[in-house]
Amino acid sequence: MTDTTPREPARRRGSRRKHFVKRTAAGSAPGQLLPDPNAHPTTFRLTTFDAKGTHEHPVASLAEVERVIAEGHLIWLDVMGLRDVDMLQTIARMFEIHPLVREDIVNVHQRAKTEDYGRELYVVAHLMQIQQEFRSEQISIVLGKQFVISFQEIPDDSFAQLRTRLCATGSLRQMSAGHLTYLLLDAILDSYFPAMEQLGDRLEQLEDQVLKREEPAGFAPLHEVRRMLIDMRRTIWPHREMVNSLMRFGDSFLQSETEVYLRDCQDHAVQILDMLETYREIAAGLLELHLSNQANRLNEIMKVLTIIATIFIPLSFIASLYGMNFDREVSPWNMPELGWRYGYITVIGVMALAALALLVWFWRKGWLKDQR
Amino acid sequence: MTDTTPREPARRRGSRRKHFVKRTAAGSAPGQLLPDPNAHPTTFRLTTFDAKGTHEHPVASLAEVERVIAEGHLIWLDVMGLRDVDMLQTIARMFEIHPLVREDIVNVHQRAKTEDYGRELYVVAHLMQIQQEFRSEQISIVLGKQFVISFQEIPDDSFAQLRTRLCATGSLRQMSAGHLTYLLLDAILDSYFPAMEQLGDRLEQLEDQVLKREEPAGFAPLHEVRRMLIDMRRTIWPHREMVNSLMRFGDSFLQSETEVYLRDCQDHAVQILDMLETYREIAAGLLELHLSNQANRLNEIMKVLTIIATIFIPLSFIASLYGMNFDREVSPWNMPELGWRYGYITVIGVMALAALALLVWFWRKGWLKDQR
Amino acid sequence: MTDTTPREPARRRGSRRKHFVKRTAAGSAPGQLLPDPNAHPTTFRLTTFDAKGTHEHPVASLAEVERVIAEGHLIWLDVMGLRDVDMLQTIARMFEIHPLVREDIVNVHQRAKTEDYGRELYVVAHLMQIQQEFRSEQISIVLGKQFVISFQEIPDDSFAQLRTRLCATGSLRQMSAGHLTYLLLDAILDSYFPAMEQLGDRLEQLEDQVLKREEPAGFAPLHEVRRMLIDMRRTIWPHREMVNSLMRFGDSFLQSETEVYLRDCQDHAVQILDMLETYREIAAGLLELHLSNQANRLNEIMKVLTIIATIFIPLSFIASLYGMNFDREVSPWNMPELGWRYGYITVIGVMALAALALLVWFWRKGWLKDQR
Amino acid sequence: MTDTTPREPARRRGSRRKHFVKRTAAGSAPGQLLPDPNAHPTTFRLTTFDAKGTHEHPVASLAEVERVIAEGHLIWLDVMGLRDVDMLQTIARMFEIHPLVREDIVNVHQRAKTEDYGRELYVVAHLMQIQQEFRSEQISIVLGKQFVISFQEIPDDSFAQLRTRLCATGSLRQMSAGHLTYLLLDAILDSYFPAMEQLGDRLEQLEDQVLKREEPAGFAPLHEVRRMLIDMRRTIWPHREMVNSLMRFGDSFLQSETEVYLRDCQDHAVQILDMLETYREIAAGLLELHLSNQANRLNEIMKVLTIIATIFIPLSFIASLYGMNFDREVSPWNMPELGWRYGYITVIGVMALAALALLVWFWRKGWLKDQR
Amino acid sequence: MTDTTPREPARRRGSRRKHFVKRTAAGSAPGQLLPDPNAHPTTFRLTTFDAKGTHEHPVASLAEVERVIAEGHLIWLDVMGLRDVDMLQTIARMFEIHPLVREDIVNVHQRAKTEDYGRELYVVAHLMQIQQEFRSEQISIVLGKQFVISFQEIPDDSFAQLRTRLCATGSLRQMSAGHLTYLLLDAILDSYFPAMEQLGDRLEQLEDQVLKREEPAGFAPLHEVRRMLIDMRRTIWPHREMVNSLMRFGDSFLQSETEVYLRDCQDHAVQILDMLETYREIAAGLLELHLSNQANRLNEIMKVLTIIATIFIPLSFIASLYGMNFDREVSPWNMPELGWRYGYITVIGVMALAALALLVWFWRKGWLKDQR
Repeated sequence: MTDTTPREPARRRGSRRKHFVKRTAAGSAPGQLLPDPNAHPTTFRLTTFDAKGTHEHPVASLAEVERVIAEGHLIWLDVMGLRDVDMLQTIARMFEIHPLVREDIVNVHQRAKTEDYGRELYVVAHLMQIQQEFRSEQISIVLGKQFVISFQEIPDDSFAQLRTRLCATGSLRQMSAGHLTYLLLDAILDSYFPAMEQLGDRLEQLEDQVLKREEPAGFAPLHEVRRMLIDMRRTIWPHREMVNSLMRFGDSFLQSETEVYLRDCQDHAVQILDMLETYREIAAGLLELHLSNQANRLNEIMKVLTIIATIFIPLSFIASLYGMNFDREVSPWNMPELGWRYGYITVIGVMALAALALLVWFWRKGWLKDQR
Repeated sequence: MTDTTPREPARRRGSRRKHFVKRTAAGSAPGQLLPDPNAHPTTFRLTTFDAKGTHEHPVASLAEVERVIAEGHLIWLDVMGLRDVDMLQTIARMFEIHPLVREDIVNVHQRAKTEDYGRELYVVAHLMQIQQEFRSEQISIVLGKQFVISFQEIPDDSFAQLRTRLCATGSLRQMSAGHLTYLLLDAILDSYFPAMEQLGDRLEQLEDQVLKREEPAGFAPLHEVRRMLIDMRRTIWPHREMVNSLMRFGDSFLQSETEVYLRDCQDHAVQILDMLETYREIAAGLLELHLSNQANRLNEIMKVLTIIATIFIPLSFIASLYGMNFDREVSPWNMPELGWRYGYITVIGVMALAALALLVWFWRKGWLKDQR
Repeated sequence: MTDTTPREPARRRGSRRKHFVKRTAAGSAPGQLLPDPNAHPTTFRLTTFDAKGTHEHPVASLAEVERVIAEGHLIWLDVMGLRDVDMLQTIARMFEIHPLVREDIVNVHQRAKTEDYGRELYVVAHLMQIQQEFRSEQISIVLGKQFVISFQEIPDDSFAQLRTRLCATGSLRQMSAGHLTYLLLDAILDSYFPAMEQLGDRLEQLEDQVLKREEPAGFAPLHEVRRMLIDMRRTIWPHREMVNSLMRFGDSFLQSETEVYLRDCQDHAVQILDMLETYREIAAGLLELHLSNQANRLNEIMKVLTIIATIFIPLSFIASLYGMNFDREVSPWNMPELGWRYGYITVIGVMALAALALLVWFWRKGWLKDQR
Repeated sequence: MTDTTPREPARRRGSRRKHFVKRTAAGSAPGQLLPDPNAHPTTFRLTTFDAKGTHEHPVASLAEVERVIAEGHLIWLDVMGLRDVDMLQTIARMFEIHPLVREDIVNVHQRAKTEDYGRELYVVAHLMQIQQEFRSEQISIVLGKQFVISFQEIPDDSFAQLRTRLCATGSLRQMSAGHLTYLLLDAILDSYFPAMEQLGDRLEQLEDQVLKREEPAGFAPLHEVRRMLIDMRRTIWPHREMVNSLMRFGDSFLQSETEVYLRDCQDHAVQILDMLETYREIAAGLLELHLSNQANRLNEIMKVLTIIATIFIPLSFIASLYGMNFDREVSPWNMPELGWRYGYITVIGVMALAALALLVWFWRKGWLKDQR
Repeated sequence: MTDTTPREPARRRGSRRKHFVKRTAAGSAPGQLLPDPNAHPTTFRLTTFDAKGTHEHPVASLAEVERVIAEGHLIWLDVMGLRDVDMLQTIARMFEIHPLVREDIVNVHQRAKTEDYGRELYVVAHLMQIQQEFRSEQISIVLGKQFVISFQEIPDDSFAQLRTRLCATGSLRQMSAGHLTYLLLDAILDSYFPAMEQLGDRLEQLEDQVLKREEPAGFAPLHEVRRMLIDMRRTIWPHREMVNSLMRFGDSFLQSETEVYLRDCQDHAVQILDMLETYREIAAGLLELHLSNQANRLNEIMKVLTIIATIFIPLSFIASLYGMNFDREVSPWNMPELGWRYGYITVIGVMALAALALLVWFWRKGWLKDQR
């Protein structure tokens, strides 16, 4: 609504680092929000659920939102972009959100977690974006009796598909805040599977290269995949505990039948962790294979050098020997071989024999076989 | 029953990847099953247990199954192949299977688990197939008071032997749904032992090769074995917890005497994990041995080069020295050795002494001993 | 107050070691404090909280402190520098601090912990200083019903910002000893984030260098970063448990609303540990990348040597061969090639062919491509 | 008693593998025992404990055993060798042993465990045999109120010493089934200490070799020791839990005073595991030392080559230079040095200086010092 | 008292092994003590605590000890050296010590532990001796209501300082058996700090050497430090649990105020473990640094060889070329260059250009920069 300039934040483009922790100033009071100039502009969408079905409300201001809330139906407020700190504070006050929660919503480097603030639950999750590179987006969900508020870091409407389906299926089922939270978490966890598949493809491709001993660009792509695995694992790891806490804390918010659905969510998180672990082990194995390949190649190179040098160095010596200029006229002891009738041929023969003997020796050592 | 074309799915042949996660479309409603064109066609077999014994019913349609169910005996419906989604939905409705369970049955990349849905238990296990390469097959078991339904991913009748034995032994014992589940799990876990034995044989063979320093094809076979160990471990690991949950959840389904049998199942899972761990450690040791062998071989190669080069390079230098063309007639200081009576012989002698001295030095350094 | 000499302790400057454990003499009685000549001189600041607001009291002696305590308001005594053992003993007796606590305050190598001494809680935490190198400073906090005493190892007033804010916001909220402790811990944990950011920058820089294969100074900077990670991890690790114990023990000291703030503290500790773990894995990956680069470079060096040597050694041999001085006049068998009309050109041609053949062989082996 | 042929089973001699899992045919009914032709012939010994003391009964048939049982005294039936499946079945029926236990007794690849079958406890332990190589032997113990049956895989009477002592000390103490089990377990765990000592000796010997850089046979003996450590660890690991379960389950079988003895057993298991862990770490350190030695040796070899080659290659070049045959008569510019009065001596001097300069350079680089 | 020969046991001097497990003969009855000829001779000291203070009793025989015990005061019997098995048995009977405890006192390779024998607690701890090398000494403490008996393996009076202090401070506090045990444990744990400091110094020294790439004696000293770390970790690890058990079991022996002191003990154990872990990680990093240094050095060596050989081998070839003896008189095609006016100078120029071109190439590859 405010600040509609769609410029892509600069920090996000240049840096590879995803571990940055944006913090409020050390020692400042909790609940004070610093506007982040790199954050995306803030917009929101309002969806209500009543007996007649699911409706998306085209509201333009927070005042209209308050009016809809007053009707008493279950609402879902989907806030996208976190730049407009004033608007966020207004929303927070409207739903009586705890100051610490407000801070965590804006500081988008929280671990996934569920926190119980009595009248509301605060859930942090991370949605995986695949564009050129993987990027996790923090989704904060505040869950009350009659409302669910989701805060998306990036305004790309990751829940569009879910919203469409909800509006389409209409009043098929009596929706509750707990079940809506499950649907959001399910959509979030589903975002990891395409990323996992891409990672799996890259790993398989690297494995093929390493097994064929191609490795065009050395070891760097493997390093990159391992970094992604580390990052994804760090991101997904606390989701398991987050869903668990949600099941434990959410007694007054979740219907008992929602629990089997949340258990399914947790299963997905565990499955992703499982696959990440497998990928990590495969990547570690590939690294070792790569190092072994390097050592093999060195051995091969050195074998070529050694074979050539070992054969020709003695021969060269013999040739040099008979290139000496000792004066044969002064003494019969000085290089009489040079005057022999078959001297040259004899020397050539000796050289051939020496080379042959060395070749046989190398052959028996197995050095003439191609290592591949 | 439907689609009897026996063509082998293409994806399964080409790819080495087993970590693929087939998911329903992100954001779609739970319980909706997407037909997988690569899945095997669906067939089923029906077995009933009554006071008179165990019978296999030759039924051709689900309507007949319903008729048999109505008789009230314990039944075992063994569904093979998961392509016919409509038939699976019909079965699911017939036994009131939860929508999330229906999804997990079709998406054959679940971890082994037991889930309690009140009136039924849902068990996922993995059977190990050994053909050219190892391949785990998902077996889903839905367990009610009076029925057991097993869903096999591949229609190769892995439970044929068990069914034969049950029909043969007849009404030997009062069969229950819980005990039948145990028998299925026991057959599933037994499928790992031949695979373990094959892996053990391969490892032992690789160990022999590495210890004899043969290693014909480098490091790739060891990598392959390690990948299999990683895959198997990932597959078998959650079975332990699955059996445990079954014992915990299954109070109303399992007779108390079944528990000792399930404990035996769990023992087998632990035993397999134990062996996999041992194999992993042995494989890691082999890798280190292999790398040490590579380094040894490099040392040996370099020693040969160094010995040959170090002996002949100085000799060649001496020979080159006396191959210089300084004009002896101009000055008596120019290479007078060339005119000495015993010059040549002296030089040969010096060369021989130098070579001998170097050989002695190498011998004392221990470089002339064969490293092997 | 005493000993105002501001000389910087010598031990702190020279040694890289931070693992030193200063202990009271073995077998000595607990509670006896040995003055440490290297410790900083001791000063203190007194802050009181009453209904009218927060005041910093300009007191010059402990006697005045006692007078202020007698007024019954909540006080915060911030002691900086631990050299003046007598003054510390006086404070300890004034607040009836347990002898073991007194020891731990002075022996500044405690792990972070919370200990329950009935009438008071003893909290140890570590503040991270970034100057040239990282240095953790022990902060001891003794927490009673109506007082909080903080002992800083280094008198650089790390809590200045907090004190200013408290005095500014005045009586905004009814302050309690528990909440003040939270504020101190929050300021302490906030001190880690700039350090983490610096470490992240260094790692990213090293990563760039290693990926570009620059590595100007070898492996030592990576080793230094890893040591810092080890040290920071050792320091921060027990803080999680410390906050946890504080929540558990602190029932009679903490108001229930303080708990959500402490939980936030714990979140920060976990987040820092998480990032340290990620950094450790990245650093480990960089090391492996570095070793692989080294091996690559060796391969490249050896390839250059092998290509040059393998091409020229045979050529040199041929040249040496025709430099032999066999007497062509004695016998027609002695080096007749030297007398051929096109002998020289033929030999040159043979040499060119041999070199070309070897180049083609190297090219097909892929050795002529630049590995980078 | 049956089958007295003392031939040593073939499988045991040839194979190095100890991870073999002999299983009943997949899908077969539990409790059916397959005779193993490689198993040792079955014999047994009967010992009774009554008020008057301990007696060994010379019984020749199971019928006599039944008669002794009927007398109501505590008995110990020590069965050795597991080939005679019929006899084992008879014993099992006599003491009403559960079918699953019968299977586990014969399939001698169980992990150590204690299982509670209500009227009896089933304990599996492993005794360590040291002959040429280590070999663990499965000991199954079935423990009832008034009987202890031990099943030894190998009929070498490992409990001879214990039996002798029991008969000697007579009715010194009121023996119970629980205490007898403790005595058996104590004897079993004591069998590990000589093995540990042998392993420690071998490791120390290897350490000496590696530290002295001897390593006669490369890396293979270290690999062997590590394999043994892996095997022993796998074997001993579950014993801790086994004793623990025994204490937990055995309430109705064990007297309270037996517990301190079992705790002592558990201490021994932990102590062995502790030592194995230490050995593993030492072996890992030795491996790294060995690899570092290999790299050192390569460095040394290459240094010798580099020094020799770097000194003599330039010298040889100079010598070759003045071996060229440019026609000095044609032009005064062609190699006038050859006609100088002190040309030869100058060149020799230049060579000497070059060699000296290189030697000084190497010396300052520290390459002339012996690395050792 | 008996056997006053002060000869140092032979086994202790020669062997580096500390993992030896001295066991009673396998299968022997518990409680039987075998005299160890290598053990130190046995002496003892008696201290009593009464209302008037702490006294050291000069007693010469166990009979006198019994007389003092009868007085009913708290006593501390400090037994040093474990050779006199009869005396130990007498003491054990005097205080009704359990046979298993007697065994463990003499077999000085127990892990640290606390065992509850109802009327007495048995505590095993290890004191760290620093002489030439580290050596842990087993201290057994038997703790009853009115007595503490400590058994030291080596009679060097490690508790002398403590005893002196106790006698000096007199009846300052009402001593109890529990508090005395704490004082002993505190003295024992304090013995680790000097050892830790020495290890830290050695590590820092090694780090300096490795970072400066000195490493005079290769890798062996680092291996030695790592072995010590392994040994110390193995020794200290169970102390944490030992103190924990003491707090748990000791309800009837310890006063509630002793608990905070024991907690302090436990803190020290954790702190030592923490530092050992840090040292281990630093040592592992040093090893990797060392290996990287080795690889660097090899690269440097090979670069020197490659630069020299690559420059001079082609030059030597050219010189050899013009050293061939083709007969220029026979044909104008045979080496006409030799007769050119500026032939020699041209060749020299070509050589210089080739060398320069190679040097430029090496410079651009960065090989001419010093790696350091």
